[in-house]
Amino acid sequence: MSCLATAHLLSIQSLSLAAVHKIFDLTTAILQDSGSALPQKLQHIAIANIFFENSTRTKLAFEVAEKNLGMKILNFSAQSSSLKKGETLLDTVKNIVAMQIQMVVLRHADPGAAYFLSQHVNAHIINAGDGTHEHPTQALQDAYTMHSYLGNLRHKHIAILGDIVHSRVALSNIFLLQKLGAKVMVCSPYTLLPFHIHHLGVKVTTNIQEAIDWCHVAYVLRIQKERQQESDSHLPSLREYQLYFGLDKDLVKSRKKKLWVMHPGPINPNVEITDYVVENSPAILTQVRHGVAIRMALLYLLATSSADYTSKK
Amino acid sequence: MSCLATAHLLSIQSLSLAAVHKIFDLTTAILQDSGSALPQKLQHIAIANIFFENSTRTKLAFEVAEKNLGMKILNFSAQSSSLKKGETLLDTVKNIVAMQIQMVVLRHADPGAAYFLSQHVNAHIINAGDGTHEHPTQALQDAYTMHSYLGNLRHKHIAILGDIVHSRVALSNIFLLQKLGAKVMVCSPYTLLPFHIHHLGVKVTTNIQEAIDWCHVAYVLRIQKERQQESDSHLPSLREYQLYFGLDKDLVKSRKKKLWVMHPGPINPNVEITDYVVENSPAILTQVRHGVAIRMALLYLLATSSADYTSKK
Amino acid sequence: MSCLATAHLLSIQSLSLAAVHKIFDLTTAILQDSGSALPQKLQHIAIANIFFENSTRTKLAFEVAEKNLGMKILNFSAQSSSLKKGETLLDTVKNIVAMQIQMVVLRHADPGAAYFLSQHVNAHIINAGDGTHEHPTQALQDAYTMHSYLGNLRHKHIAILGDIVHSRVALSNIFLLQKLGAKVMVCSPYTLLPFHIHHLGVKVTTNIQEAIDWCHVAYVLRIQKERQQESDSHLPSLREYQLYFGLDKDLVKSRKKKLWVMHPGPINPNVEITDYVVENSPAILTQVRHGVAIRMALLYLLATSSADYTSKK
Repeated sequence: MSCLATAHLLSIQSLSLAAVHKIFDLTTAILQDSGSALPQKLQHIAIANIFFENSTRTKLAFEVAEKNLGMKILNFSAQSSSLKKGETLLDTVKNIVAMQIQMVVLRHADPGAAYFLSQHVNAHIINAGDGTHEHPTQALQDAYTMHSYLGNLRHKHIAILGDIVHSRVALSNIFLLQKLGAKVMVCSPYTLLPFHIHHLGVKVTTNIQEAIDWCHVAYVLRIQKERQQESDSHLPSLREYQLYFGLDKDLVKSRKKKLWVMHPGPINPNVEITDYVVENSPAILTQVRHGVAIRMALLYLLATSSADYTSKK
Repeated sequence: MSCLATAHLLSIQSLSLAAVHKIFDLTTAILQDSGSALPQKLQHIAIANIFFENSTRTKLAFEVAEKNLGMKILNFSAQSSSLKKGETLLDTVKNIVAMQIQMVVLRHADPGAAYFLSQHVNAHIINAGDGTHEHPTQALQDAYTMHSYLGNLRHKHIAILGDIVHSRVALSNIFLLQKLGAKVMVCSPYTLLPFHIHHLGVKVTTNIQEAIDWCHVAYVLRIQKERQQESDSHLPSLREYQLYFGLDKDLVKSRKKKLWVMHPGPINPNVEITDYVVENSPAILTQVRHGVAIRMALLYLLATSSADYTSKK
Repeated sequence: MSCLATAHLLSIQSLSLAAVHKIFDLTTAILQDSGSALPQKLQHIAIANIFFENSTRTKLAFEVAEKNLGMKILNFSAQSSSLKKGETLLDTVKNIVAMQIQMVVLRHADPGAAYFLSQHVNAHIINAGDGTHEHPTQALQDAYTMHSYLGNLRHKHIAILGDIVHSRVALSNIFLLQKLGAKVMVCSPYTLLPFHIHHLGVKVTTNIQEAIDWCHVAYVLRIQKERQQESDSHLPSLREYQLYFGLDKDLVKSRKKKLWVMHPGPINPNVEITDYVVENSPAILTQVRHGVAIRMALLYLLATSSADYTSKK
């Protein structure tokens, strides 16, 4: 198995198309037969999962992938740590890495945190979400899942519905889907679109019917309800959002052709998507299953890459 | 080793007597020689410990059992999860199971939570305590321990002392001990008895001397002190409970015959039981040790049962 | 490999010089070639990491060491436990040990907690910090690191700078360095010195230049900023501490000879030590790396010691 040319996964923007295909190919091999796809085990590799924000599925998906690969796993969360004592992020991670840790999975509230560490720490860094910037492994599992349903994504139409402005998932997906040749439309109230949206090369609509008519895949984002109770609420009400932008049975049935519906979770029941649509969208759980295989492929390729850390300070 | 006819452990009520004996027999074999009792390891089985309530001994006993069996273990607690973002229990567990998890240990505050999941999720579900309903693995380790001291429990007398109304442990023990042919008496103030107590086929007394005179085993429950500070306190005072219902040296010595004393923990020192009695009751820690072997037997039997999940949605 | 004569590591004071050398020798062998240094794996040993206080590096260092040795690891922290239900420390640990746990790593806020457990619990106890008393594994990794730079520590000069009164690390280091024949000076404001300092056989100064001129190693302690916001503050201000007691570039450059600078972390950036000094002091991270090997050596020697627990109650 050949290796990635990079030693980190910091963002989709910095990932080459060749690397994406390498990850996808190994993922397919793992899903078909996890036994022979990976010629060696990674028992000698120690990896630290460093999470400064709450996470259910991303953290668990990494853990399952790491266990499947036989890695030595350290879990570290900010709640029970010396960060409360005023230590910097860099010192904390340098200390962990000094314990002979070769790989770090990082989730952090600040955009650029993973990139920053990659410049100063002697380990493979994997970005598991950095603020509102990127969430590259989520995008990889999403695009892989679309690819598994639609084949080559070139000229395919993907609509991303919902809260774009707060979503690192939206940004990573836009970058990756465009890299793979797909066309992307975003659909949301203007208040949930970033100012720079017109620089991203995507179509924009505020009419969900238009988006549904146009797309092969509807990718629904979570409305971050917790933000809507603040004084800087971006919506008149959740009920209004649901009426004008929620994906329901009628919208799905309004099409002649098959519509693939995805959602990265966690879902707000009956807000951005109705229970009926969720229950009839197997892709929502398929992408979770793919998420484990994608991470196995990624970790394997990084661990066996030719990047030489021994001389780096 | 033959297998359980069931694919879940949801409650003692739904467990057949034959299954109880199968679990007990394998537990004995494991305690005698854990090596040869289990013909295969379970390295290929991934299990998630999903705890929505605090737990020390139940959680650790499951973890030790799982590690002894070589399983792949995922720990998930509600404190650091997406549940804070409004996701439903079912969606959370479906997502975890989609990561190729075959077994789920669930503790949840709501009675019926484990049963509910077993109807909707494609994995073996083990109830590790569901609200005030049942706590079947605790009852299994208790009854097994009584069995190890007294032999066959048919016609043996078991007194359960203390807070019956709030106790899933009491309910599971009553069901299991009766299933095994024992006679059960409960002893507590009326305020700590459930309304339906007379439908459970147990003797009832408010006189602890009567209970102690009658029984072979005194099973002491924890007074849930934290509830007694609320406005709906069930007791005039802890001191009064201790005087009239606490198990002390005098009560134990008042018998001619050996009295076996058990307590599921955590103990309130010198409230429901005095330190002297605790220190002279080895069964209290023996049931902890048995708890690991019982869970190993249970997990092994469930994992090797013939239940076929591959076709279930 | 022969074994430690002790079954616990409770303090540096109770550790023989011969045992220290045995631990150091095995650490060196592990660092040179972890493969052949340890003739057996410890897969059959179950160890519980019981932390009643927050910890990053100590907890992780133990975990990495245990994983390197292949041990069965249980992690237990007070936040999610039955301690909230009023159970005593002793009952909690007895319950954990009853699950066939042979070794316990304990961090607790009370001085003497590890010793107390060693008197009542049937397992190897390792003190990972007990209040303001001792932190013996930290001292072992510090002294080992000094030994690796300076060779034999006899008659070497070690200055400990900073908050001595609140520091279990200072106390364990003073005991260990003196046991190894080094001379120790402490340098801090009088308000951060314990009353009993003159009984410890150390030199005392309040002049950091004097300490730096005298020593081969400057061991800088963390100022516990969180204490300085209370009404019982020990310092006029952090700024004043930094000016008069902080270690900076000028002080380091004021010497002709090489000065080794160490800090156990977590560091307050630019309070007790400037970023420049940290960045030019590789020993600060070297001791972290040594900390894993020291703990591997210690755990291995305890696990293979001849102490017989089977007969102890």
